[in-house]
Amino acid sequence: MSSNKTTARAVEPLGVAVLGCGVVGSQVVRLLLEGDADLAARVGAPLEIRGVAVRRLDAPRDVEVPADLLTTDAHGLVARDDVDLVVEVIGGIEPARGLILEALESGASVVTANKALLAEDGPTLYEAAEKAGTDLYYEAAVAGAIPILRPLRDSLVGDQVTKVMGIVNGTTNYILDKMDTYGAGFEEALAEAQELGYAEADPTADIEGFDAAAKAAILASLAFHTRVTASDVYREGITEVTAGDVASAKAMGSVVKLLAIAELDGDEVSVRVHPVMIPRSHALATVRGAYNAVFVESDSAGDLMFYGQGAGGEPTASAVLGDLVTMARHKVLGMRSFGESAYADRAVRPMGDTVTRYHVSLDVADKAGVLAAVATDFAEHGVSINAVRQEGRGADAQLVVVSHEAPDAALAATVQHLREMEYVRDVASVMRVEGAV
Amino acid sequence: MSSNKTTARAVEPLGVAVLGCGVVGSQVVRLLLEGDADLAARVGAPLEIRGVAVRRLDAPRDVEVPADLLTTDAHGLVARDDVDLVVEVIGGIEPARGLILEALESGASVVTANKALLAEDGPTLYEAAEKAGTDLYYEAAVAGAIPILRPLRDSLVGDQVTKVMGIVNGTTNYILDKMDTYGAGFEEALAEAQELGYAEADPTADIEGFDAAAKAAILASLAFHTRVTASDVYREGITEVTAGDVASAKAMGSVVKLLAIAELDGDEVSVRVHPVMIPRSHALATVRGAYNAVFVESDSAGDLMFYGQGAGGEPTASAVLGDLVTMARHKVLGMRSFGESAYADRAVRPMGDTVTRYHVSLDVADKAGVLAAVATDFAEHGVSINAVRQEGRGADAQLVVVSHEAPDAALAATVQHLREMEYVRDVASVMRVEGAV
Repeated sequence: MSSNKTTARAVEPLGVAVLGCGVVGSQVVRLLLEGDADLAARVGAPLEIRGVAVRRLDAPRDVEVPADLLTTDAHGLVARDDVDLVVEVIGGIEPARGLILEALESGASVVTANKALLAEDGPTLYEAAEKAGTDLYYEAAVAGAIPILRPLRDSLVGDQVTKVMGIVNGTTNYILDKMDTYGAGFEEALAEAQELGYAEADPTADIEGFDAAAKAAILASLAFHTRVTASDVYREGITEVTAGDVASAKAMGSVVKLLAIAELDGDEVSVRVHPVMIPRSHALATVRGAYNAVFVESDSAGDLMFYGQGAGGEPTASAVLGDLVTMARHKVLGMRSFGESAYADRAVRPMGDTVTRYHVSLDVADKAGVLAAVATDFAEHGVSINAVRQEGRGADAQLVVVSHEAPDAALAATVQHLREMEYVRDVASVMRVEGAV
Repeated sequence: MSSNKTTARAVEPLGVAVLGCGVVGSQVVRLLLEGDADLAARVGAPLEIRGVAVRRLDAPRDVEVPADLLTTDAHGLVARDDVDLVVEVIGGIEPARGLILEALESGASVVTANKALLAEDGPTLYEAAEKAGTDLYYEAAVAGAIPILRPLRDSLVGDQVTKVMGIVNGTTNYILDKMDTYGAGFEEALAEAQELGYAEADPTADIEGFDAAAKAAILASLAFHTRVTASDVYREGITEVTAGDVASAKAMGSVVKLLAIAELDGDEVSVRVHPVMIPRSHALATVRGAYNAVFVESDSAGDLMFYGQGAGGEPTASAVLGDLVTMARHKVLGMRSFGESAYADRAVRPMGDTVTRYHVSLDVADKAGVLAAVATDFAEHGVSINAVRQEGRGADAQLVVVSHEAPDAALAATVQHLREMEYVRDVASVMRVEGAV
């Protein structure tokens, strides 16, 4: 397309409503105002902000927003005839859901970064967009600035994705990275993350894995052409991860990460969030600090990784703007996106039936027969052992066992039984394992 | 979109013509045949192969292709009324260009993996697609299975990309990785790569950087909304990289990579392919063997990296199929893609004016005043020095200099002058530097 043709296409400006003006919203407004000429050239029509809906007109903001754009009447803004594109960056379920539905019904296209809403009630939104013949985009909802949803939806749509593993929560990755680097305990690392602004005052959504679980649901839905909601996702956070677990991982050349995992198993999917030991040679092990990365395994493409900043006002705004320009181009050309494909309609496999591998570290009595007793326990639960390492003597004797793959319930039952064994003084660390160890 | 709606949309099958049945083409045919049910559900219409154009009907192939699909009449195949989508995986300029133009003019959408053609004459193809109102996609042309063009075109379209650095040629990365890991010389590593099938019998296109230069042109065009052709790209291959260069990089915690670099500098772009020293802490340094990766810097998103397999039949076919499904969906919905945006129309900065940094390793006479003389030489060319390290004594005395940023011509002139200095016995290694050292 030449510049001339762009100009020829440039008819009426497109009106944009921004709902929410916090960390992300204020950056979206800034980028729209500062980048107007480039955006107009890329879209084929100018983008004009019709209003920015806020709760309080006088709240302090990261970016100065022209006062005449601010309004507390979000519903009125969405209902305006001259609003073609709506950016929802309020977060949470309501009023975000109601506003998005009103926008879609009025024929506007919507971009949202609202992973919680999408994971809870995405299909309602997808159907509303389909019915209205408009676009709904949400790249920013998972892994911030990293383009991952579009690659899954479009680039890999001719392939069969078999597994997605993501470090999709920067707060927990920061905490685990500190524990790994400095041997810090969980509480200490959390306190540091809070001090530096990587964790919120109430860190529950991050450290208990709720945020990652919402993203796992979205990733699984797109990767496997099915519908997965947050409540389908098995979830363990990182609050139980100890300095001992991290040291145990280190001793075997591994690192502990909180992963969002979506996996195809036959006709079913397994979707889960839990701490995992992965070998340091795995690409995901190199993701440090608050960075995010998503690792994708697929039949033909093989292994792919997407890496970048998963949060923050500017990176998230970059993803929002990418979607906004795409939707605006569609408006100019009278098109819409293909929408969510859920034809495969797969069952979600319960965690107990999901095949995993365990790393178990035991404090044991230093007696002949301990190893045999432990090995027998695994065997009786139908779990094969991949590797055993015995360390220390006397009161410090430790037995480290890495299992082969087995149903998670069988592994959990094995561990439960080990806890009751006479020779086992303590089950010091239990963690699932991903990647070749 | 529910399954029902998919079925409702599924009207007529879409006809596919595959041009070329080599390593990539045969995998495309296999995936189309084996994945037909999934592809039909994802597209909303079945995809049916109308024919596979080959040079010789009886040539040996990686995948068995039904004999009744094979034809030697590529032009006749493209001209068929029932061909809606054309896959061009012949490679080279002609007959590929003529066939693609015929296909576009007949209203078919085209997916091609032909980087050489796109880098030489892309605009002719883009304009033909625009004129015909059809799609032209080419994700597989750069970095094989890695989704990178679509992220640049769509995901980052609301952002300002400032720099793209890619390891986009697996052959040269394999060779340089071997040189780094085993201290091998270039010839030895090349011979091993040829033995293992990572390098062709005539490796010129890879080792002289022609392949990477074509990809650099495509990346620069998309990242900066402009038009860059292969002839605009400054190009140095890896044939001059010695074991000494690699050792010198190693000594400073760096590694040598062949990078395709596209950089925004004011209103201009710099596009180049040459060996580079990057610190081992840089994400690109971790890309081993024949893998590819593209590192993207942008104003709002910050740093992103895309990693995966850059070549091979199946990975490349995955990218082709992703494009094919997208084009097929467009056909079903009566849409087309937005096309290439070249509104920015940027000048390409000559290499001499491009700002770079040099690492220079000199064998020097062990005399007082050598360092001062060398430093003076840099200063006289207007180049500041970032770091100097003096090593060894007597006949083995070495001086390693890392410059600050300066115009490439000034750096080259400095090195040329150093070669003529009395105290300098040999300029042992000269290499550009990227990333914080």
